[in-house]
Formats: sequence, C-alpha cells, structure tokens
Amino acid sequence: MTHADADVAEAEQQADAQTVTTTPAVVRLNPDDNVLVAARRVTAGTELPSVGLKCRDDIPAGHKVAARAVAEGEAVRKYGQIIGFATQDIAEGQHVHSHNCGMGDFERDYDHGVEARPTEYVPEPQRATFQGIVRPDGQVATRNYIGVLTTVNCSATVARAVASAFNDAALEAYPNVDGVVAFAHGTGCGMAGSGEGMELLQRTLHGYMMHPNFAGVLLIGLGCEMNQISRIVERFGLERGNSFDYMKIQEAGGTRAAIQDGVERVKAMLPAANEATRQPVPASQIKLALQCGGSDGYSGITANPALGAAVDKLVRHGGTAILSETPEIYGAEHLLTRRAVSREVGEKLLERIRWWEDYTARNSGTMDNNPSPGNKEGGLTTILEKSLGAAAKGGTTRLENVYGYAEPIEGPGFVFMDSPGYDPCSVTGQIASGANVVCFTTGRGSVSGFKPSPSLKLCTNSTTYQRMSEDMDINCGPVLDEGVSVEEMGDRIFDLVLRTASGEQSCSEALDFGDNEFVPWQIGAVM
Amino acid sequence: MTHADADVAEAEQQADAQTVTTTPAVVRLNPDDNVLVAARRVTAGTELPSVGLKCRDDIPAGHKVAARAVAEGEAVRKYGQIIGFATQDIAEGQHVHSHNCGMGDFERDYDHGVEARPTEYVPEPQRATFQGIVRPDGQVATRNYIGVLTTVNCSATVARAVASAFNDAALEAYPNVDGVVAFAHGTGCGMAGSGEGMELLQRTLHGYMMHPNFAGVLLIGLGCEMNQISRIVERFGLERGNSFDYMKIQEAGGTRAAIQDGVERVKAMLPAANEATRQPVPASQIKLALQCGGSDGYSGITANPALGAAVDKLVRHGGTAILSETPEIYGAEHLLTRRAVSREVGEKLLERIRWWEDYTARNSGTMDNNPSPGNKEGGLTTILEKSLGAAAKGGTTRLENVYGYAEPIEGPGFVFMDSPGYDPCSVTGQIASGANVVCFTTGRGSVSGFKPSPSLKLCTNSTTYQRMSEDMDINCGPVLDEGVSVEEMGDRIFDLVLRTASGEQSCSEALDFGDNEFVPWQIGAVM
Ligand SMILES: [Ca+2]
Ligand SMILES: [Ca+2]
Ligand SMILES: [Ca+2]
Ligand SMILES: [Ca+2]
Ligand SMILES: [Ca+2]
Repeated sequence: MTHADADVAEAEQQADAQTVTTTPAVVRLNPDDNVLVAARRVTAGTELPSVGLKCRDDIPAGHKVAARAVAEGEAVRKYGQIIGFATQDIAEGQHVHSHNCGMGDFERDYDHGVEARPTEYVPEPQRATFQGIVRPDGQVATRNYIGVLTTVNCSATVARAVASAFNDAALEAYPNVDGVVAFAHGTGCGMAGSGEGMELLQRTLHGYMMHPNFAGVLLIGLGCEMNQISRIVERFGLERGNSFDYMKIQEAGGTRAAIQDGVERVKAMLPAANEATRQPVPASQIKLALQCGGSDGYSGITANPALGAAVDKLVRHGGTAILSETPEIYGAEHLLTRRAVSREVGEKLLERIRWWEDYTARNSGTMDNNPSPGNKEGGLTTILEKSLGAAAKGGTTRLENVYGYAEPIEGPGFVFMDSPGYDPCSVTGQIASGANVVCFTTGRGSVSGFKPSPSLKLCTNSTTYQRMSEDMDINCGPVLDEGVSVEEMGDRIFDLVLRTASGEQSCSEALDFGDNEFVPWQIGAVM
Repeated sequence: MTHADADVAEAEQQADAQTVTTTPAVVRLNPDDNVLVAARRVTAGTELPSVGLKCRDDIPAGHKVAARAVAEGEAVRKYGQIIGFATQDIAEGQHVHSHNCGMGDFERDYDHGVEARPTEYVPEPQRATFQGIVRPDGQVATRNYIGVLTTVNCSATVARAVASAFNDAALEAYPNVDGVVAFAHGTGCGMAGSGEGMELLQRTLHGYMMHPNFAGVLLIGLGCEMNQISRIVERFGLERGNSFDYMKIQEAGGTRAAIQDGVERVKAMLPAANEATRQPVPASQIKLALQCGGSDGYSGITANPALGAAVDKLVRHGGTAILSETPEIYGAEHLLTRRAVSREVGEKLLERIRWWEDYTARNSGTMDNNPSPGNKEGGLTTILEKSLGAAAKGGTTRLENVYGYAEPIEGPGFVFMDSPGYDPCSVTGQIASGANVVCFTTGRGSVSGFKPSPSLKLCTNSTTYQRMSEDMDINCGPVLDEGVSVEEMGDRIFDLVLRTASGEQSCSEALDFGDNEFVPWQIGAVM
C-alpha cells in the first residue's frame, strides 16, 4: 500500500526509458475494456494499426487511451471491470484521466452481486488434469512433506534440529518424501490465552496440520507456554497417529532428549509417508494462492492481469483461487461486492474492511483510500483503478465466499481470504487455508518460497526477469515487449501451475526456500 | 504474569510433596528481612533452632512467618524490601499474611529515591576480573561472532545460507572466531515506515550491529522492503568497513548470487575477526541481562533472590545489571521508584508503566495489579510481594536509570530496560542494549540461548535441575533442600558469570541454541 507511490513514479521512469521500438505502444488488459494502457509515451497523432486506433492526445506511459468512444455517464472499463465513469463524452483515441473520468456515485454503492455472472464451466470431459497425491480423506496434495510445527519460539531450536536430522542421505530410503521441514516462529507466549491473537495462531497451526501436502506433522511445544498443545489438541479433536504426533521438551527431559524423541517420532511417520504416489486428478483440486510482493508499475499491466486470466481459466475448470491482502484492495471493495455471489458474502467482506479500519486506527495507522498525486501522475485515475492493479490477480469471475485469515477454504471458485499485504504473513494464512500452489507476482524481484506448497514467481518485466532468472519461474514482460496477449500469458501460467502441481520443481524449491517464511499474523500486545 | 496463578498453586502442591525431612523448613531471603518463607508446611509449635524460632501458627508452604516481633504500622520486609505494613502487632513465630499485613498508603506513594542508598563499591584493587576481548572502541566482548543480520523476513533464507557456509570446517583457520550466525525474523515490511514499530526494529538491529560480541556484521536486505538499509545506514551514520557491510538481494541479482556475495563479504571479515584475543579486564565490564521464564513457585524463593545477591555483588564490583519484563513488575513499580537515583529516573519508569496501560488497553488486554486468589493461597499477600518474586533478580542497589527497549545502556549499576516478559523478545532487547551475559532463571525448565551473548540457566529447584541437567547451568534448589544461603548461592552465580564471560561454554551454547531466538518486539499493525 505504502509502496504504491514510489512504484508508480518509478514505473513511469522505467517505461519512459524503454526505447525498444519493436514493443507495442499500447496493451489491452481485457477484451471487455474500452480503454487501453500506454506501454510507453505515445504522442498525439500516432497511428496504432495493431488496435486500429489513432491517438488524439499525448498519452504518458502507464496512462489510458480510449479504445472507442465513451459517452458521458458510461462506465470506463479496465481489467474488464469498472474503474469509473465518463464525466464528459470521450472520443476514440483521447486521453482518459481525471479530467474526463470520475467515480460518480459508485463510491458508496456496493451493489452486492450485480456483476456476479454464473461461471461458464468447462464441460467435465474437457477439464484439465494434473498428477496429484490423493490423501485418505480425499484432499489432494501437490507435495509430500513431513512438517515439524512449533507452538512457541521456545521450541524452535529443537524443531529445527529434528528436521535437520533428515537430510537427503537420511531420506534416501524414502524417495517419495519431499523433505522434513521445521516451521519456527516468533510468538506463542507472552500473549493473551484467548482472543483474536491466540485464535489466529491456533487456526494457522491447525491449518498446517490439516494441509494435504503433509503426510505427517509433529507438533513440538516447550511445556509451559501460553499456546498449550493440550488446548490445540482438545479444540480441534486431534488424535495421535500415523500422520499426527506431539511432544513437549520439558516432558522429554531437555533439549537433547527432545531432539532424539522427535527424530524417532518423525522416523515412525516415514514408511507411511513414502507410500504416497501421484495419479491423474482434475484441475479442480488446485487451490491457488494469489499474492503480489515487490510490485512495480508493470504489475498491474502484465503479471497481475495475466494471472487473472489464468485464474478465470482455473475457475472454469472447477478450481479454487484465493485473493487476499486486504489493505491492497481497500477503497475498491465495491468491485468485489459487485462480484459477490450473494449479499451475505459481500457483507462479509465489508465487515473485514471495517475491522481493518479499526485495527489500523488503534495501532495509530490509517487505511489510505485515495490515489496519491504520484499515483495520478503514473496514470491511475481512481482508487478503484489503483486497487484493481492488485486485485486483477483475481480475474473476473464471481466472488464465491469470504474467509478469515487461515480459515479452511472449501472452494470451488474465486474466494477472498482476509490478510495483511505483507507477503510471508499473507501466504502463511493462505497455506493454512489449504492453498496447494502459490502464484506470486513481483516486479522488483521478491525471493521467497513457502513450504509445503510450491510457489511460482511471475515476473512483471523482462529486465528483472533477466537479472534474477534463477528466482523467476515465468516472465510476463512479453505482454509489454513482445505483444503477447494477456490471455495467452494466462494460458502459459495455467499450464505452469498444472505442471508444478504435478511435481515439477519451482525456482524457489530449487533454491530451497520455505524453511524461514512461516510468519503467522501476530495481533495484540506482546506481554 | 498470566502464569503466576497456576505457578503458585502448583508450587504449594510441589512443596507439600517435598517430604525429605533433612531440608530446612524455612528460608531467609535477605539479611534485612523480618519474615522467613516456609519451604514446606510447618505446624504450630515446631521449633526451628537453625533460625532460633518457634512457630506459633501453622505455616503453609510458601507462606511467611515472622522472624521477630513486628509492631503495628512497621514495614514487613522480604527480599530486603517492603512488601507491606503490619496492620496489627505481630509476634515472633506468627503467620504473616492478609490478616495482619496490608499495603497501607504505600500503594500510591512512589517516594522517588527514599531507598536509594549509595553503592558500597568494592575497592578497585580488590575487584574481580575476567578474561574479556577489548574492542577498538573500548567495549568489552565475552564472545567473538560474526553476525548476519536481516532487514526483513524476505532476506532470511539468504542470510541463513550465508551463515551455514561457515561450518566448523570452514572456520578451522579462524580458531578465535566463535561462529557466523544469521539473525532471521518475521517482520521488516508490511508495517508503517515510521513510528513506534519501525523505531523499535531499527534500534534493535542497530544494537546488534554495535554489540561488542560481534567482530563483524553483514546486514542483508531484499531491496524493496519498508525497513530500508539506506535509512538505517543514514540514521546511525554507518560506514562499510572491516566490521560492517551490507548488501541487497535484488541488487546482487537473485538468491544464488546474493549468497555467494554474502559469503565473500563474511570471508573478508574473518582475518580481522580472528585477531581477537582475551585479556584480564575488570568485572565492571559485565553487562548482565536478567530474565526469568517458565517460572514456578520456587522462583521467588531460590533462583531469583540468589540472582539478586549476585547482582548486588556485581554492582559493588562496578558492573551493570539490566532488569526488564515490565508486565512482571507492574503494580510494584513503587519498589523501583523508591530505589531510583533521582525523581527523573523514577518518572521515566512511571511513564513506561502508563505506556503499558495504554498498549494493553488498545490491544483489548489489561494489566493485572492484584494478587489473585491463587496467589494468596500460595502465600503472596500483596501485589508488591508478587512482583518482587520477579524483581528479586534485580537485588537491592539503587536504580541508576530507565531505558526504552533496545536502547544502548551505558551503566554502571542496576538499571531497568522496558520490555515484554516474553523471553525471546525481552532478551533480544537486552542484548540490543548491550548485555554481554544473560542470567535466566527457570523452574519449569526453559531451553533457549541468545547468540551472540552466553545465557546461563539458573534452575529454581532440584527436581527440574536433575531432569534437565544438560540444559541447566546451575541448580539453585539447594537454597531450599540443602540450606545453602541465598548469599552463598549468589556467590556461586557471580563466579559462574565471570567464568562464562571468560569463555567457559554455557549449556545452551553446548546445545547450539541462539540461531532461532532473535525476536524483535513487534508493535503496530501488520499491513
Ligand atoms: Ca503481498
Ligand atoms: Ca532441503
Ligand atoms: Ca521472561
Ligand atoms: Ca561468600
Ligand atoms: Ca554452530
């Protein structure tokens, strides 16, 4: 949120500097749009034969040009969605910005469900498949890990020592096990024993315990922490078995004994874990976490809309996609309530928005719901348009449900899970909710990975992609510099998601990320 | 804080169960005390020849017995400090509790400085020494590490990969270097760019950078995070050199390049780091962090007062001791303001107390300033007495100053640093403030360690000590079960602190703790 100003200003500079004349001058983000986005500065009078358009005004990079005439009062559409209304008649080829486009009454009109179109499902026989691991409870895994979870920071060192006993050599006899991973974190004590903070932490831990990508989970506590194992076990009705076990360091008799004990308990899980095999399953078993981090001025033009196209396709194939990062959609919640499947679902989102206003206010912060001067210079006319740059990841299908952080997500379809925008914290919640693949768009070049689910980096521009190619799974820059359509890029992302879900290694897995990015959302006083 | 009720109730049970008849029945916590504490239930009529006393009442375990007659209105002293006033005449051997002891007007009377006695320093030639490492700036180190710090969670994996390149084999040529340690954490972005949260994080990172126990520090950022390296460098006037360097992953060109780059930068620090040698330095160079975690009903009777005796001795030798954990002293701040060297110092503490009341209130929590029914059953008569169980670690010398979390502490003498009670968060602040040894009292058996400073575990009871002997550095149980005096136990702790500061390995170092316990205090909304 707070990055946006700098990003947009920078994007304009970058776009200005992009002098490769073979790149297309304008980009169409969605077939329904009546505006196009200038990929670089286009001067008045320029003919754009590829889109059958002649520019009547100078269009700065990142700004909008009318693809056809728009009458006064008519909706202006970008990303296939309303970003405002024409405040005067706009001719084809004119610059569209604050002088001829505004919010109108739209701002306070949530219009629950008015744009919730029925999903056009792909007929069952034509649906895509991938090679997944079907768990006994019917959930489908994309990876096969054993997790060593911690109730509290005080058990972090023991948990890491247990996991590190299972290096490649130790797992040689268990080729179907992807690894043993410890999930350390900084909280679990010095906090209230009940209330929002404890609720989120327990829900997150439980979500990981239940995640299909774990064949087994060992939960390690110290013994005297506020976040007691006994309460977690009781609350969620957990029982020790092949796939879940727990232990306390104080009961084990100290660090060394606890490590030995933990290693034995993990060893006992390995034979059953190794029996996991992949089989063809429908793409509807994908639960895709949508995330952006290290955004830049290209994010809203290339990677995010391309991911949105992939999400629309995934939803038509019966899959689930999870948009999050509530602060990033703030001020544009209307766009999601209009896509909500029901008033009830729309109201759930608005309840979260109100919660965030209170959360930031009581922490001496604010939610910003205006495009800044920097945003406007960069071509963003309304707050809807600004937030859509992030929300474009979510495509255009109807909003099926709204979930709290780390709540189990059933699917199918496009859903929203409340979370901060902060990457590790947001993705931790998405994985706790059941996401089995992550798509992460980045312009500056975020490096991260989130075991137990593979995370794909979708790069917004070719410059960053080339500089950090070992970290980036796919380059969405060609939408700008090779004229690849957003839909075509969406198809490439969809295919990559299926291959990755089938076991193909992502860049962040090759680099062994995911052991340090478990960051449960910490709310409340540290005491 | 919230542990106390359960702890005290449990302590009574444990004390009741303690049937070894050779143990002394009562314990004197301080020579100035006019009450003694029953180590186990003592029945009316029991003669206690070791203290020249006959019990007139039944004294439950953990409760107090009058060591001499106390007149109505006279102060009742435990830990050498006022815990209340006699509300009626009390005879020698009588039970002292709510029926004859209360707070009086003391409660709202901060009486700044009335008990601030001048420190009786040990004459210079007689002062203790240890083998320390004198840094070019005159600071004295107790260990010699290289630290790999992170601005944000997004650089955690790279930082850990850099540090893990320096295993024992890689450091063979640098025998004077204790190790290369990564300090990962969960925050650094998705937060306000200024204000309290960012202030604490930057202060903590800077405190670690300046810590004498690091021969060198490499700070690794991602590049686009809110907690920008450039701002840290500018704010604190840092310059690259032999002992400080920094880098960004996005500038390095991705994960693999960043790891290689980081490894080279650490390698460049090793030759100078290896030149560190130990030499005799005065004990005044000790900055001792005081901490308790996993407390039990014995904490206030054995380990905490024994540590307090060691602190009094350290202060007389010119050293510095840092009490923290503000919620643990809440309601007993009067005891510290009365010891304050000036009204100004006392007011600083009260300002922090008021801040905590606001902090917990705005996070829907409360500070509790009454001993609970469970506390009272366990023998704790007033809130002063309850909080003194924790504050006893700080001994009896005057309070020289009050610091914010992670603020640089100059010393000498007994000081207070504001922090939560939560162990890893509190100790992280103490080390950022400059603590070069940690003394950590525990009854339940906390396991932890805090690189770059050695951390000693002081166990409150022999049962836990025996069960977790590999984790516990010293057993304070003999105060109860062998009649070892609190002063004598304090001497043992003081000697152990000096040996540890000189390089003797603590239990937590032998177990290689300290790579996962860096937990900066996170305040404010995660966005
Ligand atoms: Ca994000
Ligand atoms: Ca691995
Ligand atoms: Ca503590
Ligand atoms: Ca002595
Ligand atoms: Ca080591």
